[in-house]
Amino acid sequence: MKPFPTNIMEQILVIGSVALDTIASPSGYSKEILGGSATYFSISASFFAAVNLVATVGADFPEKHSKTIKSFGVDLEGLEVKEGKTFRWEGSYVKDLNCAETIETQLNVFAEFKPCLPKRYEKSKYIFLANIDPDLQIFILKKFSGKRFIGCDSMNHWIKNKNASLKDMIKKTSIIFLNDSEAKMLSGESNILKAGKYLLSLGPEFAAVKRGEYGAILFSKDFTFMAPAYLLEEVKDPTGAGDTFAGGFMGYLAKTDKINENNMKNALLWGSVMASFTVQDFSVNRFLNVTKKDIEDRYNKFKELIEL
Amino acid sequence: MKPFPTNIMEQILVIGSVALDTIASPSGYSKEILGGSATYFSISASFFAAVNLVATVGADFPEKHSKTIKSFGVDLEGLEVKEGKTFRWEGSYVKDLNCAETIETQLNVFAEFKPCLPKRYEKSKYIFLANIDPDLQIFILKKFSGKRFIGCDSMNHWIKNKNASLKDMIKKTSIIFLNDSEAKMLSGESNILKAGKYLLSLGPEFAAVKRGEYGAILFSKDFTFMAPAYLLEEVKDPTGAGDTFAGGFMGYLAKTDKINENNMKNALLWGSVMASFTVQDFSVNRFLNVTKKDIEDRYNKFKELIEL
Repeated sequence: MKPFPTNIMEQILVIGSVALDTIASPSGYSKEILGGSATYFSISASFFAAVNLVATVGADFPEKHSKTIKSFGVDLEGLEVKEGKTFRWEGSYVKDLNCAETIETQLNVFAEFKPCLPKRYEKSKYIFLANIDPDLQIFILKKFSGKRFIGCDSMNHWIKNKNASLKDMIKKTSIIFLNDSEAKMLSGESNILKAGKYLLSLGPEFAAVKRGEYGAILFSKDFTFMAPAYLLEEVKDPTGAGDTFAGGFMGYLAKTDKINENNMKNALLWGSVMASFTVQDFSVNRFLNVTKKDIEDRYNKFKELIEL
Repeated sequence: MKPFPTNIMEQILVIGSVALDTIASPSGYSKEILGGSATYFSISASFFAAVNLVATVGADFPEKHSKTIKSFGVDLEGLEVKEGKTFRWEGSYVKDLNCAETIETQLNVFAEFKPCLPKRYEKSKYIFLANIDPDLQIFILKKFSGKRFIGCDSMNHWIKNKNASLKDMIKKTSIIFLNDSEAKMLSGESNILKAGKYLLSLGPEFAAVKRGEYGAILFSKDFTFMAPAYLLEEVKDPTGAGDTFAGGFMGYLAKTDKINENNMKNALLWGSVMASFTVQDFSVNRFLNVTKKDIEDRYNKFKELIEL
């Protein structure tokens, strides 16, 4: 891989959550480990490009976790520390590795999250609006003028409770990332091809539908691309796989800085490869022991698995 | 596609069921339509090679159904008509298109099925043992000497009740076709990669694991190949998709008559393409309106969807 782009415009900005997760899975139990959509996204994207992070944590957020994110070169000027407690999520994969059961959610300081962007972040050409209130996502987008490549994520909660804002937000983006069930819920379609078409009809140029261990589908007006997931013999903790996927996807786009069919298809593969690392360990731990060479090797192995 | 091979050794033999199915799906209800593993397999394979069919039906089996199978050029000398009633299966996909709910099974003459092979069928180089009692599958294999390419299928019932016979049978075959849940059940593994390895450890050169709308995985000692399914906006009746997949797979191998990595990977794609036609209508009806050109076109479209 080439080193980080020197042109600041090719930087990636992510706005989302930095959290403390408590996870139970068949591989064990981990209490208050580093989590959050912006955490997973930024660390994944950091292997491809320079990343700026905007999120909020409480005063109780452990210094060692900030250091971990920083160790990947992620810019944390946008990580606001507020009085109060950090967003906490507790989930279990004990019954089903493919589906998190939420035990408890404590929004804490995240409930009052009002993203505050350092001025220099506004130059970022690639922007990822992780899963937050669509009204906040729209608020953020208003800060940007000129051509940007904007990705977004959402969830069932916003599909149900802020449907109009969500659709308004999606219209302003370049690509929406949703999982299979979210795409079906938002579209009201039980068929995934119809759901994909519906997502495009909302306005974005691309829609990426994630299907967990079954891979992902990329929809656009001009082409559709499907790939299976990179399978593993052992999955320890699926938390963050979707954000890691988006991080690899957007990271590769920022690195190549060209939106065309071939790059979009490859971005899906790099996203899948990054997600396959995340799930091999709790939190972002797997990335502490991964080199760019490891990532390239797995990408090549992945291509062998799916190419004729 | 080239015309049927003239060398009789490249013929395919299938031993399985010819049945009358009653199907309820979100697209409607169809009573006593043509079904059965050997029916779906043979019609699918008939687009690639000459097929010999061995099965048994009752005296009540409608002549029009025999004519339908024959219209695809399938040799029916091995279709034995016995006193009594034809095997009947009633299933519903109303709750879940991906999973058949069995309403009723009447084995009828199929309960006493003792495959009787016309002598000339013994020259068939490609043999598919559809899902029947593994002791019968072993009985059939004893009739063959010399190098053959043997595919087999099975189901949860035999995994549970004839486990030793089943494993003994699998050892003698070239490729086993199982769906995801059967592969996991037989191996005792919840991870599909581990399940695939286990299948190979039983002796066959290849194992094809079918994952319905999520595609299929081909395992071998030398390579693994994964492909998504060819998706459709509407599925009317998923019955027979697995046997149709195996028919396209084995049919393509017989047509090319060379077992190598590239042909095996392509066989999986042709199998997927054939399965995608089957599910578009009840019974084998879709194949009544399909040309070899339609099949080739969809194969090319499928490649576009999955290739970088």
